[in-house]
Amino acid sequence: MSSHVPINQHSDITAPTPQNTPLTHAPITAGLPRPTVPDISEDAEPAEDSTAVHEAMLGLVQGRLAGLLGKSSGYIESLSDGTKTSIVALIGVQVKQNELQNQYKRECLELEKKYLELTKPLYERRRALIYTAAVPTPEELDAGAAQAAKDNPEENPFLVPPSTAPAAVPDFWLTVLRNHVGLSELITDRDAGALKYLNDLRIEYLPSSEPKPGFKLIFEFASNEFFENEKLEKTYVYREEVGYSGDFVYDRAIGTEIKWKDEKDLTKEFEIKKQRNKNTNRTRLVRKAHPTESFFNFFSPPVAPSEEAIEEGDIGEEELDELEEKLEIDYQIGEDIKEKIIPRAVDYFTGKALEYDMLSDDEDDYEDEDEDDGDGFEDDVDSDEDDPPAPRRSAGGGRGGRGGLPANVNPEECKQQ
Amino acid sequence: MSSHVPINQHSDITAPTPQNTPLTHAPITAGLPRPTVPDISEDAEPAEDSTAVHEAMLGLVQGRLAGLLGKSSGYIESLSDGTKTSIVALIGVQVKQNELQNQYKRECLELEKKYLELTKPLYERRRALIYTAAVPTPEELDAGAAQAAKDNPEENPFLVPPSTAPAAVPDFWLTVLRNHVGLSELITDRDAGALKYLNDLRIEYLPSSEPKPGFKLIFEFASNEFFENEKLEKTYVYREEVGYSGDFVYDRAIGTEIKWKDEKDLTKEFEIKKQRNKNTNRTRLVRKAHPTESFFNFFSPPVAPSEEAIEEGDIGEEELDELEEKLEIDYQIGEDIKEKIIPRAVDYFTGKALEYDMLSDDEDDYEDEDEDDGDGFEDDVDSDEDDPPAPRRSAGGGRGGRGGLPANVNPEECKQQ
Repeated sequence: MSSHVPINQHSDITAPTPQNTPLTHAPITAGLPRPTVPDISEDAEPAEDSTAVHEAMLGLVQGRLAGLLGKSSGYIESLSDGTKTSIVALIGVQVKQNELQNQYKRECLELEKKYLELTKPLYERRRALIYTAAVPTPEELDAGAAQAAKDNPEENPFLVPPSTAPAAVPDFWLTVLRNHVGLSELITDRDAGALKYLNDLRIEYLPSSEPKPGFKLIFEFASNEFFENEKLEKTYVYREEVGYSGDFVYDRAIGTEIKWKDEKDLTKEFEIKKQRNKNTNRTRLVRKAHPTESFFNFFSPPVAPSEEAIEEGDIGEEELDELEEKLEIDYQIGEDIKEKIIPRAVDYFTGKALEYDMLSDDEDDYEDEDEDDGDGFEDDVDSDEDDPPAPRRSAGGGRGGRGGLPANVNPEECKQQ
Repeated sequence: MSSHVPINQHSDITAPTPQNTPLTHAPITAGLPRPTVPDISEDAEPAEDSTAVHEAMLGLVQGRLAGLLGKSSGYIESLSDGTKTSIVALIGVQVKQNELQNQYKRECLELEKKYLELTKPLYERRRALIYTAAVPTPEELDAGAAQAAKDNPEENPFLVPPSTAPAAVPDFWLTVLRNHVGLSELITDRDAGALKYLNDLRIEYLPSSEPKPGFKLIFEFASNEFFENEKLEKTYVYREEVGYSGDFVYDRAIGTEIKWKDEKDLTKEFEIKKQRNKNTNRTRLVRKAHPTESFFNFFSPPVAPSEEAIEEGDIGEEELDELEEKLEIDYQIGEDIKEKIIPRAVDYFTGKALEYDMLSDDEDDYEDEDEDDGDGFEDDVDSDEDDPPAPRRSAGGGRGGRGGLPANVNPEECKQQ
């Protein structure tokens, strides 16, 4: 493969001064309803921003700019005071543009809400077809048959004798979730036992009256032997202001506390240990709980550290990286459920959606999901787990998941091949 | 660094049959106004789709699914006819959802247009401040000064004596374009001579009355010694239907034909050769033109091959890959101009925007832009060029450029490290 991007030698380029404190404001018409995952070190109040991590990152960036443009400063300084005055006014105009961008994103969100309302009758219908074996209309059957024939030109598994009576679809949502690349990795076999009771998965937006926008994923369960809750919810809250890229930025995620029934907590593994009393020499059995991998950890999302904690250096850089990665995975999964799984559940059930996810992955990342296991990236935390080491994987990602998770191989490491 | 994504062993997973003909329909509420770059092999009429390339890609995907889920078929087939009937109806409901998604995207585009109109007075004001040294209002100066102080807490280069008379900003758009990572690579020093005359860069949407939506980038030039045109335009047309991911998909791009003045064509290099007449033995000088790297090639975008040409095998797979890559770069640059450069021109001028682009790049790709030159990826086409080989680079990309260009190192190649 070859590239056609020409490159020039930047011999006498005019290089401006990169400024060095990011803002959360954003440009006009960026047109991106998808929220970005915030850097933990991103600061909502840029004027006060002077964390060490942040400075280090910016230093790195400026170093790169220096490499790219030949010099990293001096251009702005070289301009006349008159021109600088005009630039200050231009920056003032940009502030107004950013305000419009914020308004625009709010309107985008309202439009999303409007279409969710328009779609709800179809979601209700979906639910009825799945659970109560509602009788399909001739239009539904015709449209579905035509689509299935298009999707399966060679061998169509959906050819059924006409006027077959409908039947409920067993394990619909479990199958859907297990057919999403990222989620399938989170769902253990033990989890599957509980997810069989998942009756519906839907989304609500936070009311516009709330200061911060966001959405809520609602998992509705039939009564089951695992937990008392009828609904488990995961709420994602955006920041009030869009980020610099013009997207909403995640503020935090909140999950329902699961009321596990006795000894049914899927997020724990229990170990029975014998203990001997040194005095009496009698033994007793003690049950010890370890946290373990489970899809249901999704409802105990990681908490971003406060700006203060970062500034005061309470959190090490490595710890910060890990936390940031956990947060990204959590946000990415929430986004995939919102943007892909709920809207196209039946395509995940039949496997059609998976093709696209895999294709996109391939195109964007050149990453081969099913060869990851041997790549040597081992999970060096949670070492109290008995499970095999977890390789670095991308949950979702691909074209549909902009700003997805980090690829599992760092290209920089390969530069010298 | 470590990952916290648990992985399970997929021991008795329920694996559905992946279907095998993609559609251009899309889900509800995917909410992505950003268009995706189509695969060249993507088919607008899926029912007729059976190209060899396409089949090969899908074969690959299905192979992966088999690896991921343990089996690639049999699940749908194993369901009862009654359940299959319900699924056919569910597919029919999904078709309706896709129709709503198409409507939604059209409304998103209308919202984008509305905000462009709201922003136009600010763009006009920007133009006046840049070129005619319009007198800034006190509000503009106050807002700009406050923002500049926030952006530059350490050393603020925008501090000017109060009531300094404004002056025009020289080379504004040239500096802006040269401060965009992707574009700076396309702009040769010769191009810079012509881009000094770039007076305005703006966007218009194609009228809603046109069957296909899209937008037009308008480059307005002062009269210059290079070409006759006062405006150069690049038009991007989307397909009527959104793609499977729920985004618009690019259909094609069209550029203005540049009317170069004599010997001023920046997209060509001229070579003077001596030729000797075998009969008369007299020599003469012959001017030979070679195509060369130039930003102005942006106005002669690559043309996607027709479905027929691909199906009939007129185009080799490698050629197809190259063309697809060229198209992706072209679309990505158009998108970056639309989404980033026009909305935040002043931030590119001051260098502020660059930081974010670099930060995003870093986070998403783990890619070090300024170390690319030695990576050995040489341009194996355009070998008639005298310029040094062009490394594979990402134009734009990063968080702001979802579905950006391929990273310059294919991680798959590094798997065995």
